[in-house]
Amino acid sequence: MMIEMDELLRLALLEDIGSGDATTLSVIPAEREGRAVVFGREPFVLSGSKPFIRIFELFDPETRVECLFPDGEQIAPNVNVFMIEGQVRTLLTCERTALNFVQRLCGIATLTRKMTDAIAGTGCRLLDTRKTTPLWRGFEKEAVRHGGGKNHRFGLADGILIKDNHIAVAGSIKEAVRRAREGVLHTFRIEVEVENLDQLGEAITAGADIVLLDNFTVDMLKRAVEIGKGRVTMEASGGVTLETVRAIAQTGVDFVSCGALTHSARSIDLTMEFSV
Amino acid sequence: MMIEMDELLRLALLEDIGSGDATTLSVIPAEREGRAVVFGREPFVLSGSKPFIRIFELFDPETRVECLFPDGEQIAPNVNVFMIEGQVRTLLTCERTALNFVQRLCGIATLTRKMTDAIAGTGCRLLDTRKTTPLWRGFEKEAVRHGGGKNHRFGLADGILIKDNHIAVAGSIKEAVRRAREGVLHTFRIEVEVENLDQLGEAITAGADIVLLDNFTVDMLKRAVEIGKGRVTMEASGGVTLETVRAIAQTGVDFVSCGALTHSARSIDLTMEFSV
Amino acid sequence: MMIEMDELLRLALLEDIGSGDATTLSVIPAEREGRAVVFGREPFVLSGSKPFIRIFELFDPETRVECLFPDGEQIAPNVNVFMIEGQVRTLLTCERTALNFVQRLCGIATLTRKMTDAIAGTGCRLLDTRKTTPLWRGFEKEAVRHGGGKNHRFGLADGILIKDNHIAVAGSIKEAVRRAREGVLHTFRIEVEVENLDQLGEAITAGADIVLLDNFTVDMLKRAVEIGKGRVTMEASGGVTLETVRAIAQTGVDFVSCGALTHSARSIDLTMEFSV
Amino acid sequence: MMIEMDELLRLALLEDIGSGDATTLSVIPAEREGRAVVFGREPFVLSGSKPFIRIFELFDPETRVECLFPDGEQIAPNVNVFMIEGQVRTLLTCERTALNFVQRLCGIATLTRKMTDAIAGTGCRLLDTRKTTPLWRGFEKEAVRHGGGKNHRFGLADGILIKDNHIAVAGSIKEAVRRAREGVLHTFRIEVEVENLDQLGEAITAGADIVLLDNFTVDMLKRAVEIGKGRVTMEASGGVTLETVRAIAQTGVDFVSCGALTHSARSIDLTMEFSV
Amino acid sequence: MMIEMDELLRLALLEDIGSGDATTLSVIPAEREGRAVVFGREPFVLSGSKPFIRIFELFDPETRVECLFPDGEQIAPNVNVFMIEGQVRTLLTCERTALNFVQRLCGIATLTRKMTDAIAGTGCRLLDTRKTTPLWRGFEKEAVRHGGGKNHRFGLADGILIKDNHIAVAGSIKEAVRRAREGVLHTFRIEVEVENLDQLGEAITAGADIVLLDNFTVDMLKRAVEIGKGRVTMEASGGVTLETVRAIAQTGVDFVSCGALTHSARSIDLTMEFSV
Amino acid sequence: MMIEMDELLRLALLEDIGSGDATTLSVIPAEREGRAVVFGREPFVLSGSKPFIRIFELFDPETRVECLFPDGEQIAPNVNVFMIEGQVRTLLTCERTALNFVQRLCGIATLTRKMTDAIAGTGCRLLDTRKTTPLWRGFEKEAVRHGGGKNHRFGLADGILIKDNHIAVAGSIKEAVRRAREGVLHTFRIEVEVENLDQLGEAITAGADIVLLDNFTVDMLKRAVEIGKGRVTMEASGGVTLETVRAIAQTGVDFVSCGALTHSARSIDLTMEFSV
Repeated sequence: MMIEMDELLRLALLEDIGSGDATTLSVIPAEREGRAVVFGREPFVLSGSKPFIRIFELFDPETRVECLFPDGEQIAPNVNVFMIEGQVRTLLTCERTALNFVQRLCGIATLTRKMTDAIAGTGCRLLDTRKTTPLWRGFEKEAVRHGGGKNHRFGLADGILIKDNHIAVAGSIKEAVRRAREGVLHTFRIEVEVENLDQLGEAITAGADIVLLDNFTVDMLKRAVEIGKGRVTMEASGGVTLETVRAIAQTGVDFVSCGALTHSARSIDLTMEFSV
Repeated sequence: MMIEMDELLRLALLEDIGSGDATTLSVIPAEREGRAVVFGREPFVLSGSKPFIRIFELFDPETRVECLFPDGEQIAPNVNVFMIEGQVRTLLTCERTALNFVQRLCGIATLTRKMTDAIAGTGCRLLDTRKTTPLWRGFEKEAVRHGGGKNHRFGLADGILIKDNHIAVAGSIKEAVRRAREGVLHTFRIEVEVENLDQLGEAITAGADIVLLDNFTVDMLKRAVEIGKGRVTMEASGGVTLETVRAIAQTGVDFVSCGALTHSARSIDLTMEFSV
Repeated sequence: MMIEMDELLRLALLEDIGSGDATTLSVIPAEREGRAVVFGREPFVLSGSKPFIRIFELFDPETRVECLFPDGEQIAPNVNVFMIEGQVRTLLTCERTALNFVQRLCGIATLTRKMTDAIAGTGCRLLDTRKTTPLWRGFEKEAVRHGGGKNHRFGLADGILIKDNHIAVAGSIKEAVRRAREGVLHTFRIEVEVENLDQLGEAITAGADIVLLDNFTVDMLKRAVEIGKGRVTMEASGGVTLETVRAIAQTGVDFVSCGALTHSARSIDLTMEFSV
Repeated sequence: MMIEMDELLRLALLEDIGSGDATTLSVIPAEREGRAVVFGREPFVLSGSKPFIRIFELFDPETRVECLFPDGEQIAPNVNVFMIEGQVRTLLTCERTALNFVQRLCGIATLTRKMTDAIAGTGCRLLDTRKTTPLWRGFEKEAVRHGGGKNHRFGLADGILIKDNHIAVAGSIKEAVRRAREGVLHTFRIEVEVENLDQLGEAITAGADIVLLDNFTVDMLKRAVEIGKGRVTMEASGGVTLETVRAIAQTGVDFVSCGALTHSARSIDLTMEFSV
Repeated sequence: MMIEMDELLRLALLEDIGSGDATTLSVIPAEREGRAVVFGREPFVLSGSKPFIRIFELFDPETRVECLFPDGEQIAPNVNVFMIEGQVRTLLTCERTALNFVQRLCGIATLTRKMTDAIAGTGCRLLDTRKTTPLWRGFEKEAVRHGGGKNHRFGLADGILIKDNHIAVAGSIKEAVRRAREGVLHTFRIEVEVENLDQLGEAITAGADIVLLDNFTVDMLKRAVEIGKGRVTMEASGGVTLETVRAIAQTGVDFVSCGALTHSARSIDLTMEFSV
Repeated sequence: MMIEMDELLRLALLEDIGSGDATTLSVIPAEREGRAVVFGREPFVLSGSKPFIRIFELFDPETRVECLFPDGEQIAPNVNVFMIEGQVRTLLTCERTALNFVQRLCGIATLTRKMTDAIAGTGCRLLDTRKTTPLWRGFEKEAVRHGGGKNHRFGLADGILIKDNHIAVAGSIKEAVRRAREGVLHTFRIEVEVENLDQLGEAITAGADIVLLDNFTVDMLKRAVEIGKGRVTMEASGGVTLETVRAIAQTGVDFVSCGALTHSARSIDLTMEFSV
């Protein structure tokens, strides 16, 4: 349960509706009831059923919205996914806002699924990043899970990731790890981003629990795995695409993380069709 | 000026920071000052300087952020666009949230610019749609303008667009237009979405001010222009891509509208580099 | 539906109740149930049933409130309009806030009805303005509709009205209209406020869709109608009272707008009577 | 200081501006600076300078707004009261919202001043009621003070007023007063509303500190004063108008309270004139 | 009813839950239902059932929470006080926040009961102060009532208490009382804090309704009562503990007020036990 | 920086001030300036300077507040800690709310310091818990740090602590740990609460990173340390008081956690003295 979800969804509705849906209020009588279905024009992995349903309920609690599949399901084209019944005014007024959520979240889940399929059997897991749409990270990280991915930290408070600039200020990887160990929760593992094999060695010596191998070539990743396997958890990032992801995963790293999952997934084309 | 902008940006920061940036607070001393620049790895059209700058100011009003180009400018790779000075903690903690805004908005402006370039000289104008990211429509529609596009209505309250379902409930285009004329502000023009040439004729007869020609082929658009030119403003939508947009524009329609501008633009790859 | 209505009504209740209704909490036992009715001491047009009912529901969802007539109905003195049943504490604590809404909104609807009756048969329609009570514009514009009036634009975003100062800055009516045509939504008609017949001519030439004839005498309005009829929609404003409105309407203008409908309507005297 | 004032004023601005002032944004260049003054067309008592000034500052902190007189001052027609300098866009966009506040608050202060003048020399003080505009009670009660009136309780939490329904549930005035004495703060005086001389006697016997003589004729008020003078504070209400208030005050009651001060004052006609 | 209660409780939940209860979400299946009870390890007076219950309902309205005793009841050790049924996830996630409220409020009620027991039969009443936990004053003052205490004013707006600094600025007790009488609601009694018997005399002469005898010894209190009895209400404060309170109460003062009730009560040790 | 701090502090002020500080507004002239200092009547460790200062600034940004020592400093009785200058009205109106924060936070820091002093030299670190005051956890955890303690997790999202009920539902410690490892961030260490030595063994075998030894006697703790030292981080909790804490720390556990630090610290008696 997202505690604030309702408030943000209400604001999203308000953004679109403003002082009222002028067209619908003038053309559609208040008492008119109707029914609509939603389907895709292409295959996709479902995600976003929660905000889709909630948008209609927030606008009018009498509306009945049903999602015919669980999130995470692979959906064929032209198969009905949602069924909505209620006042026609409600259906028309909420349509765009509800679709704006679900078409983007399905896009993320679908791209994630393609990537997780690509690395199936390698033992490597796909992670997302914090490169998400502001205010909708919760839904987007859920979409990644619906696509079979695993979440990296939700925000800056729930994990330690020491990057190049942290290291530069601290003076060395060793000192940065020492400070983190002293300052943060004893329940956190410490992750260090490294740019080459020397830094990898330093990080291991400093006692890092996880290393983020950033922009390593596949060959460098292989050597990194030889060095670090069994001593440290290893995550690869940088240049991860549908084309490259399997080779990266096959190097033996534990995780591969990919920002494009959330920042550049193409929206799925979904249609709401009425029988008014 | 967006009155609520600050509140939403503050929530966006909070989403990422939560109870605090654990890594930075433990590794970076509070008093340490630094400087960073932001540049792209590829050419792009700038947009989003307002939220980028504001994010840092909201976190710490002492931070100095400068945008070196106006929004809407075409930027070459590796050219510094932003310069930020202040506490290193602030720079590191706000980096991701600030970049999440600007990389998406630059993506929208860049795609829009490609499309407006593609229809240059045709006299046709490019419009966006309401297929935007919930809560960030204001910024995204601004990005469309930075790319040279023109905005369609901001929300349901500031324009009349009678769609197929409105027509179905009203019984006819004629009746739908009559109801809208009676019910809405006398300051609104009335736009009607039509699916074929028969409906186009009905809409004109009913007194529509604008027609939205949805999913018309280029040939149908040409015939529609022959029929409607001078009697009604004409807008084409559906299947609008970088490849198809010029042919559509050349049919003589007044406007072409495209949802992909905002729902499927690829993010621009931007880097923040520190000199700490 | 007003999305934010509940939040504002809750704040309004809180404004009156603060840390608690000291009198009622000390004098009335919590379990005591009761019933009350609301009626007027004078004839009036009903408006405001929505906030009236909602106030009680927000304070205690168990309260049963019924409105015995539709908004817009002409009500005779001493006829019960609302019936409320529930905890006596709730009835007493919400009474004032609920009445504060409805007595003002009935005042607006009643004055509007008198004005629309005064122009009956002339073909001219009565419009409101933006001279409303801050934060309650939605209810007040609804009250105008309940009185038979038609709404002018809800706010600055949903219509174009070029006034003297816009013209002064632009340099001429022609240039102001040109800029507006270029800059605003293609779905907006453009209204220009004019102060004399010369400006009327300029506005028509510039392509204005609507002219607002401000502070024209009845004779000038007649001449304006001769000039503009069929070429432009005409709206008269300034000095509109119950005494003058019919003469203005009979000049042939399409609309007459009146700020006093919302800024200076006298409240209706309503009484809540308990049978505890 | 009103802590929440800014938040409510911001919402009020947003109500009018929505997604933007379409006319001004398209017609007026961003960089254009200007100056405006505000004056009345009729004599009035000034009130509302705080929200007037704050509206402009909230929209753009660079705007310079000056109020040339203190609140409470009697202002002659055509005398400039406010001077505003800043971006022309700001001046035009905020004009209506700022005026909506001040014209209503000046209306309240002006009516209050007329009433306090009418009872000058009688020793009786004029009180307001809780019949105020929801969410703006603070400003309206301040306007009453600017007009020379005194405030009755701000809300239900800061005073005890036992009315007919409280008495009916408690069984008697005596019992109602006893319960209030037991239940409420020891810092509160207890006021009882009475409808006739018998009830007045009961209230005095029960130990009421103040009696509210509701809808008493002038003759009854005189007899009430004979009975209660020196034993209880006396407040008259009901049917209080500019015509009747002096006769009521001359009966010797300590206070007269009047709901029309806040619920039915006519707005003052104020004009903002630009020199752009 | 506290209008804002829900909003603050929702924020309190969010403070603890953040982006989600990581342990519970990973270990406990969503569909698992369970039951829990809450009991104390020591005797205590119950308070806080409202926020305890509401916390669970806000998180998941399907949860059934029952409080088996009324607030204010003396509870023996190991007796079940609350019974909660619902999803195990909900029970585990809300446990800490719900207990944090109730253990503190029971602590306040329990300490208050001990003090009111200590002064039983003296005719003196125990008052709280404004030394409460920010944002939770409503609940804490209710806990004082549950313990048998009486509330002093809720905040600065609902009572007059003239302290030493007010007197110093006004110049004398006489002048301070005069100003207060002129400036505040006629429904307020006026309380004056005095530090010695001279000031007591001044306060009575000035017409104070109540005196707060601050840090008087028991002997001084006795003399104060001789002087003031029947002329003014008397309240003692300062150095009030379980050990001293009876002697203070026996001096004949009407009230004794004690800040420690709310600022230093020890939390009650409560346990939530599951049968999952 | 706490992003929401201002909003909560503003609500806290509003809770106390409501519609206005009636006493101060009537007795103290608006223009009167003054100065005040704050000192303790007993020795204490300073904490809470941030909310103390901010309260005054939020009410009136012109107020000058200085904290003469850093948080965490040991302060002697009767030594001035804060100096405030500004309008006397501001000083008097904010006094109570500002003191309510700082007296509680100093209480927490002072108790924590006593405990950390008690375990000095043992190598064991003192931890807090989530038994904090709702909405003020950030300040309270900071006070623990000012007292020399270390923070346990801030909320449910930033750490894994598997408790008895999680184990019961999962079926075994092994299964609970397995699920957590699978479900949560790879950046989290996994802590398991155990009640006896058997469970300790299970937890180690299951791969727990940290064990919470709940309500172990000192003898049991010693045996636990023999078993787990070098294999798992060990934290003791339950029955931790000033009297028992050193013996617990000397067993060799890495951490001892104590809820009383935040739920039952006695407030420090602080005085604000004016020179008006």
